[in-house]
Amino acid sequence: MSVKQLKVFAPASIANLGPGFDVFGIALDGLGDIIEAEQVDEPGVLIEVNGVGADSIPVKASENSAGAVFQHVLKEKGLHGGFRIRISKGVPPGKGLGSSGASAAAAAVAADRLLGLGLPARGLVELAAMGEAAVAGSAHADNVSASIFGGFIIVDERYDVIRMDPPSIGVAVASPDIQIENKTKVARSLLPEMIGMKDAVRSIGYASRMSAAVALGDTVLFGKSIGDAFVEPYRARIIPHFWEVKKAALDAGAYGCSIAGGGPSVFAVGEDVLSIGKAMAEAFGDIRADVLITKPSVRGATVI
Amino acid sequence: MSVKQLKVFAPASIANLGPGFDVFGIALDGLGDIIEAEQVDEPGVLIEVNGVGADSIPVKASENSAGAVFQHVLKEKGLHGGFRIRISKGVPPGKGLGSSGASAAAAAVAADRLLGLGLPARGLVELAAMGEAAVAGSAHADNVSASIFGGFIIVDERYDVIRMDPPSIGVAVASPDIQIENKTKVARSLLPEMIGMKDAVRSIGYASRMSAAVALGDTVLFGKSIGDAFVEPYRARIIPHFWEVKKAALDAGAYGCSIAGGGPSVFAVGEDVLSIGKAMAEAFGDIRADVLITKPSVRGATVI
Repeated sequence: MSVKQLKVFAPASIANLGPGFDVFGIALDGLGDIIEAEQVDEPGVLIEVNGVGADSIPVKASENSAGAVFQHVLKEKGLHGGFRIRISKGVPPGKGLGSSGASAAAAAVAADRLLGLGLPARGLVELAAMGEAAVAGSAHADNVSASIFGGFIIVDERYDVIRMDPPSIGVAVASPDIQIENKTKVARSLLPEMIGMKDAVRSIGYASRMSAAVALGDTVLFGKSIGDAFVEPYRARIIPHFWEVKKAALDAGAYGCSIAGGGPSVFAVGEDVLSIGKAMAEAFGDIRADVLITKPSVRGATVI
Repeated sequence: MSVKQLKVFAPASIANLGPGFDVFGIALDGLGDIIEAEQVDEPGVLIEVNGVGADSIPVKASENSAGAVFQHVLKEKGLHGGFRIRISKGVPPGKGLGSSGASAAAAAVAADRLLGLGLPARGLVELAAMGEAAVAGSAHADNVSASIFGGFIIVDERYDVIRMDPPSIGVAVASPDIQIENKTKVARSLLPEMIGMKDAVRSIGYASRMSAAVALGDTVLFGKSIGDAFVEPYRARIIPHFWEVKKAALDAGAYGCSIAGGGPSVFAVGEDVLSIGKAMAEAFGDIRADVLITKPSVRGATVI
């Protein structure tokens, strides 16, 4: 029997993690979006947003990652009524922390449970990725997969997901206070269409080591595998002081450091993440940067 | 104290394994080269070769992967004497089964033990890769790393190796009876210098899944990760009937199938590898193909 009303939490996430562009994602502890969804008689999807950065989140369903999910389900299932959804943002938008992905993931799980769809794992990812595409312009599934399943995920273009428990390691995220219009689209437009064979081989090596490190629970190897030969150099261009921030993180003892998703946040992993985070924020110089001290989360989207 | 005479076995290997070009290698069971090395007073490296394909192996030290290893050590250590080495080939040369790599690996371990060098893992790989470069034209270390350490290896350009126990899975190798002059160089010259971003992302996904599969001991995932978006299509050109052979392997139940190293051998993994190997050989049509039924080996180069 399906229910009429539901509340779902989904965590923030970091995609790419260095070498795994469009492939890797990791869920973050202590930060997430909550979606309260109610099935109503009135047609359409009515959206209300509150919380961090709520002002910048569109409430038009087709332009909202959670709204697009519900809209798709309404159409797909030929339902007569509609949904009323309230999004409580915990994940700051536009920072590279999978904000739209967390909302889309929570929405997909909420829609699945509300309507008793019984979607398989791949179906949930596909649905959430479609919501993500409504705001990001492309249906990449790295963030949404991490937000749905928690842990560390490897996803392919057919939305097949491998999920592993994440390494027990500290994560520091420094988010500079800069705004980039259409950030996800811009971050993608910076990337070249062709890359050198040597760079590809190098990234395949980093990604393989990271994947093995997660499976083996080797935290140091995980951190040291945060390398990337063909995304970071291009995206670094829109993050002021990126190279200084990365150097500061490594000098402060981080095992590895790179751009969180499409940026502009920079993340680092290590033991003393408090000091690492502080060093990163300082290296942003006159640009104010919020620092988040967290760790990977085993928990994904959860009905609460 | 160093000894004067030594006998070392090193296994055959398959490099790349689909997505891990220059990064992955796996040692094979029941097939390998044996090197008997003796430190002698006469200067230089005297080589004698017997066994499979011995006629095609150069005995001039600088052109022989094992000879080059000993020559390098002589020079490096400023030794006055020389070495007499006997290579018993078990790995057929020119087939993509790491033949020169097995000899180089055995030579590196023999030289290390004979002279009591106490080389660290990276040093052994570097030494063997140098021997490989003498015949292959490039110092790729995927084959030699697998031959030295056994199991499944991930190697980077600085010769750092991660070694994991390999999956317990059957391997069928079909080696067509064709000769390609300067095979390794030709196989490399076929590859493009630049590759599409999408192909790189796809291969990063395959490689990450394969690496996780090995760490998790998931044999089916291992086999299904044998995909490759930017090496196979180019190298397939010099392997007659490659696509038919691959299809035959998959139709016969293989989880995955690709080119072994630089080819022309084609390998497949699965349960009923006898049937798979037979189907592959038949798909080579009028080209005779030897079939090897084997499995990954945990054993690397070993003093015997």
